[in-house]
Amino acid sequence: MLVRTPSGRKDIRALWMEGRSVKMIDQRLLPGKFRLVSIKTHVEMADAIRDMTVRGAPAIGAAGAYGMALARMNRADTDKAARLLKSTRPTAYDLFYAVDSMLRVKDGDMTEAANEYADGIVTKCRSIGESGARLIKNGSKVLTHCNAGALATVDFGTALAPMRVARRAGRRFFVYVDETRPRLQGAKLTAWELLNEGIDHAIIPDNASGHYLRKDVDLVIVGADRIAANGDFANKIGTYEKAVLAKENGVPFYVAAPVSTFDLSLENGNGIVIEERSEDEVLKIDGVRIAPKGSHALNPAFDVTSRKYVTGYVTELGIMTPRDFRKLRR
Amino acid sequence: MLVRTPSGRKDIRALWMEGRSVKMIDQRLLPGKFRLVSIKTHVEMADAIRDMTVRGAPAIGAAGAYGMALARMNRADTDKAARLLKSTRPTAYDLFYAVDSMLRVKDGDMTEAANEYADGIVTKCRSIGESGARLIKNGSKVLTHCNAGALATVDFGTALAPMRVARRAGRRFFVYVDETRPRLQGAKLTAWELLNEGIDHAIIPDNASGHYLRKDVDLVIVGADRIAANGDFANKIGTYEKAVLAKENGVPFYVAAPVSTFDLSLENGNGIVIEERSEDEVLKIDGVRIAPKGSHALNPAFDVTSRKYVTGYVTELGIMTPRDFRKLRR
Repeated sequence: MLVRTPSGRKDIRALWMEGRSVKMIDQRLLPGKFRLVSIKTHVEMADAIRDMTVRGAPAIGAAGAYGMALARMNRADTDKAARLLKSTRPTAYDLFYAVDSMLRVKDGDMTEAANEYADGIVTKCRSIGESGARLIKNGSKVLTHCNAGALATVDFGTALAPMRVARRAGRRFFVYVDETRPRLQGAKLTAWELLNEGIDHAIIPDNASGHYLRKDVDLVIVGADRIAANGDFANKIGTYEKAVLAKENGVPFYVAAPVSTFDLSLENGNGIVIEERSEDEVLKIDGVRIAPKGSHALNPAFDVTSRKYVTGYVTELGIMTPRDFRKLRR
Repeated sequence: MLVRTPSGRKDIRALWMEGRSVKMIDQRLLPGKFRLVSIKTHVEMADAIRDMTVRGAPAIGAAGAYGMALARMNRADTDKAARLLKSTRPTAYDLFYAVDSMLRVKDGDMTEAANEYADGIVTKCRSIGESGARLIKNGSKVLTHCNAGALATVDFGTALAPMRVARRAGRRFFVYVDETRPRLQGAKLTAWELLNEGIDHAIIPDNASGHYLRKDVDLVIVGADRIAANGDFANKIGTYEKAVLAKENGVPFYVAAPVSTFDLSLENGNGIVIEERSEDEVLKIDGVRIAPKGSHALNPAFDVTSRKYVTGYVTELGIMTPRDFRKLRR
C-alpha cells in the first residue's frame, strides 16, 4: 500500500519478515502516528495479535504464520507456539488456517512457508480487487464498514481491493466510511488508506449508515472473518445491521474475502464463536471514561449475518454464491 | 429526577426559573461533572440551545418558552427574540410550538406561562410513563437510543418514563443503552439517569444493537423530535436503523412523545428538515482528532423513520396509532 511515512512516500505491506524479526505497522497508533514495531518471538507475536497492533482476519493469518516461523527460528516448541497463537483471538478463521498450515511444514523452511503464505494473501487480494472492480462504476456511492483494507490483509485489502483497482483504472466514486465503534477502524484506518489512494470519501457515524443507505448508497462491500458453508458469515460488529438495512433498501451487499476465510466445517453461522472484548473499549475513549461510574458495557467484537442478506461473495476465484462453495468442498 | 449532586441527593428538574434567571444542568459535562448554569437573557438561552447545554425536544421547548419569558422580563423585542430562539435548531417541533405559544401571551405574565408550559410537559411525561409502563414486565429486555429521559424533557422523560414508572412499581428489567454516537447521549446521559433510578442496564456500541435485537431484546422504546400526521417521525440519527432491525426480528417498537411533538401540518416525514451538525463532532472526540487530516465527515443529527416500523405511539393520552392522530386533528 502507498504510505506517507516520516521519510517520504513508500509502498509497503502491513507486516513482513526482515532478518530474524517481523516488522509491522502499529495499527493502534494510526492515523496520528506511523510507527513500525519489531517482533522477535512468537510470544511477542501473540501479544501483538491480542492487543490489535495487527488486526484484520487475513493479516492475523499472516501474523500467525510468521509467529510460527519465529518459534521455529528460536527453536521453541512449535506445537505449544501454535496453541498460544491460536488462543489469541477466537473468531477469524484465517488464524487457525494459517497456523495449522505451518504445522504441516515439518521439514521445510518455515520462514519461506510464512513468506509464501503472506505473498499468497496479497496475490489473492489483488484477484479479489480484479473480480470486484466491475461493481464500482464512475459516480458509484459505496458504503464500507470497519477496515478490510491493506492493513487488514498484508496488502491490497479485501473490501477495499475493488476500490483500489477501480481507482487505479481512473474511475471516480465516493465511499461512505462507517466510523466503526468501538475501535474506530473505519475513521482511523479505512479513511487513512482511502486518503493515500486518492479516493473520495466521508466518515459517518455508524448510526448514519441507515440514513444514507435509504437515500444515496448504490453498493455495500465489507470483509469477513469467517464464512460458513451456507454463506452465513462473521464480521465486525455492526455488519449485520448494515446488511439488513441494505436489503430493506434494495442496495446490493457484497462480502469480499479470500477462500481461506471459508470454514466449510461449519454448516451455518450458528457455530461461529463471537469474541467478547473488554468493556473498557466502550466505556473509555483514549483513556478518558465517558460513561458514569457504576455503568457497565457489553462489547461483542463481531456479529453473524445470514447469507440471505448477501448478494455475492467477492473472492480470488470470482464473485461466488453459496452454491459455488459446495463445488469448492467437493 | 433523582440526582446525586456535590451537596447530596436531590430531586430536581433539567431546567427551571429562579428569580430573574433560568437554572439548568449543563448536559455537556455529564456524567463527569454536575454543574448548574444560570441563563439571564434570551440571547444566552439561544446559545445554550445551540451548543446543547440543554437538549432533547421537550426540554428545548421549555427552554424556548423560558427564553421568551427572559426577553419579556428584560424588555427585549419578543418578535425578534422568537426568531432568534427558533433559529437555533431546525428539527424538533416542540421549540416552534413553545415559542409560538408564548407569542400569543401578549398581555399575561410570560413567566407564569413558561412555568405552566414546563409543568405541563412534566405532567404529560408522567402520563406517558403511566401509559407505557404496562409494556415493561418483570424480566423484560428493553432497548433505547439516545436520551429521552428527564434531562431531555424537564423531568421524568418520554422513552424513559415507562421505565421509571415500572421500576418504582417494583419491577426488575434490563435496558440495553445504545451509546449514540457522535455525541454519546446514551452512554453519558441515559446511563446516568438509569443509575440514579436503580435500573439495570448495559451500554452497547450502536453497532451492537442489531446483534442484541436478533438475540435478546423484547421491546424498543425511543423518543421523537417531530411526528408527522401519518406517523412518520424524526428522532436522533440511528433511530431508523433500530426500527428496521426491530421489525426484521419481530421486536415491538414504540415511540414515546407528548402530543406537542405532533406536527399535523406535515402529511408525512418527507417534509421534516434534518439538521446537519459540525463534522468536528465526528472527527474529534474530547477535542482529540481521531480521523486522518484531510478526511471529512457527514453528521446528520436526525433521521426519519417510516410509520410502518412503529408498533405504537406512547403519549399522555394513551398508546396511539396514526388513526388516532387523525381524530386529534379534528
